[in-house]
Amino acid sequence: MAAAESPISEYTLRRRVFFYECDGAGIVHFSNYFRYMEEAEHGLWRASGLSIANREAGVGFPRVAASFEYHRPLRFEDEIEIQVRIVSISNRSMKYTCAITRGGESIATGSATIVCVAQQPDKSMKAVPIPQGIVERFAVSKS
Amino acid sequence: MAAAESPISEYTLRRRVFFYECDGAGIVHFSNYFRYMEEAEHGLWRASGLSIANREAGVGFPRVAASFEYHRPLRFEDEIEIQVRIVSISNRSMKYTCAITRGGESIATGSATIVCVAQQPDKSMKAVPIPQGIVERFAVSKS
Amino acid sequence: MAAAESPISEYTLRRRVFFYECDGAGIVHFSNYFRYMEEAEHGLWRASGLSIANREAGVGFPRVAASFEYHRPLRFEDEIEIQVRIVSISNRSMKYTCAITRGGESIATGSATIVCVAQQPDKSMKAVPIPQGIVERFAVSKS
Amino acid sequence: MAAAESPISEYTLRRRVFFYECDGAGIVHFSNYFRYMEEAEHGLWRASGLSIANREAGVGFPRVAASFEYHRPLRFEDEIEIQVRIVSISNRSMKYTCAITRGGESIATGSATIVCVAQQPDKSMKAVPIPQGIVERFAVSKS
Repeated sequence: MAAAESPISEYTLRRRVFFYECDGAGIVHFSNYFRYMEEAEHGLWRASGLSIANREAGVGFPRVAASFEYHRPLRFEDEIEIQVRIVSISNRSMKYTCAITRGGESIATGSATIVCVAQQPDKSMKAVPIPQGIVERFAVSKS
Repeated sequence: MAAAESPISEYTLRRRVFFYECDGAGIVHFSNYFRYMEEAEHGLWRASGLSIANREAGVGFPRVAASFEYHRPLRFEDEIEIQVRIVSISNRSMKYTCAITRGGESIATGSATIVCVAQQPDKSMKAVPIPQGIVERFAVSKS
Repeated sequence: MAAAESPISEYTLRRRVFFYECDGAGIVHFSNYFRYMEEAEHGLWRASGLSIANREAGVGFPRVAASFEYHRPLRFEDEIEIQVRIVSISNRSMKYTCAITRGGESIATGSATIVCVAQQPDKSMKAVPIPQGIVERFAVSKS
Repeated sequence: MAAAESPISEYTLRRRVFFYECDGAGIVHFSNYFRYMEEAEHGLWRASGLSIANREAGVGFPRVAASFEYHRPLRFEDEIEIQVRIVSISNRSMKYTCAITRGGESIATGSATIVCVAQQPDKSMKAVPIPQGIVERFAVSKS
């Protein structure tokens, strides 16, 4: 994938609700919103010319925090937009917010903070600075 | 199931991490912590003598907010404790916190707010007071 | 969605592997192939002008059998094609096969049999003939 | 975990249906039966004194085939038994069947074939003989 010319600060994914994402109440299970947010985040990485999982220097990006507020339920086959926007970048972490909408109507808003880690010889993970080749591909959203 | 004699304010679930809950990084996917929290919440309801899904008066309890902070990763076959504690009860909602531990070590802390809703004739959901037969089975945790 | 002019007998869905679909071995968990197959099946229904969940006459289509044979692993961000083809239609059931490929390479082949049921007053489900308005939208694949 | 004294040929897991395992039709999604089967398989490995993921010689055990036939639906909070029984062991693979029951009533029957693989330097996987320390812990079920 060719790198984008300028740093990326937001990304919108469009997709449809799958049947198996709905729960016994007939609406999308609240845990799946976190998966939707991650799908859009990975789109953000791809749009930047990178893959979150194909990383240089052996680093990874686990979440240290994630949250959602739910405004309206989603149902099978709903067509939704999932927008992620980077709101802060520090030496070792990035935070983004997420807005899920359906035809312009707000469904849910969330956020996640990811931290750059390197796996240690004992298999534990340690926070490390985000490599320059990665951090330069992203920018804080101005919108 | 016989009703407990006094209101319930906390519940601890013990379980093992399943293989399919781990992601491509070899650790439990962050979205699954929300499912663990819900499993413990449903244990709390059962301990109170109720089922969250077998409710009187046609009410349901969707989440309006949910969050987690992640301290340490979990791996396949880890044995964990998931404790939920009710921290507030209002006319129409309840909030609880969740502590996930592994042998006493803190893995993650979370929270969720559930709201009592009744389905309207047009299939939309409207917040309503928690029925007396339900709210009297719960109490705010003092610990 | 406007109904297609002629009956539908096959459908191909293209999508990318999501991170949370990979398991602790770094490959797509075998259970998720069944979800991929269902996603393509629902595309087949939509292509026919119907929704499997928005059905007339109160019928539903649970699976009575499902299987997969796995030839090669899938990894995060792989771009795949999921093709379903109807291989038989009877009074009360339909069977389709599924071929998952990646750039023409065979990844897995599966099948599922769905049966038309109506929910009885006691909440049990009973097999019933597929309504005419549904069955006439599908045809057995000749390829 | 201490190794069992004699080879293991079957294992029964008891568990309750979780809310998020039910789908928009209010019943357990058919893909989750494959996860139930795997949970019981991993119990079988633990009962043998091994872990499927903590393996010697760098081998893994992906599935090459899996199937289920569904007899009755499962609902939230159902208490079920998931029994796996080894039906054949060859040089490089094992096949087991799975019976899911609820209070003695047959819910579904399934099967899976797992094959022993070693990851090659190019990341591809190649079938290899099951190491002696593993194969000697299992036996074909006589029941």
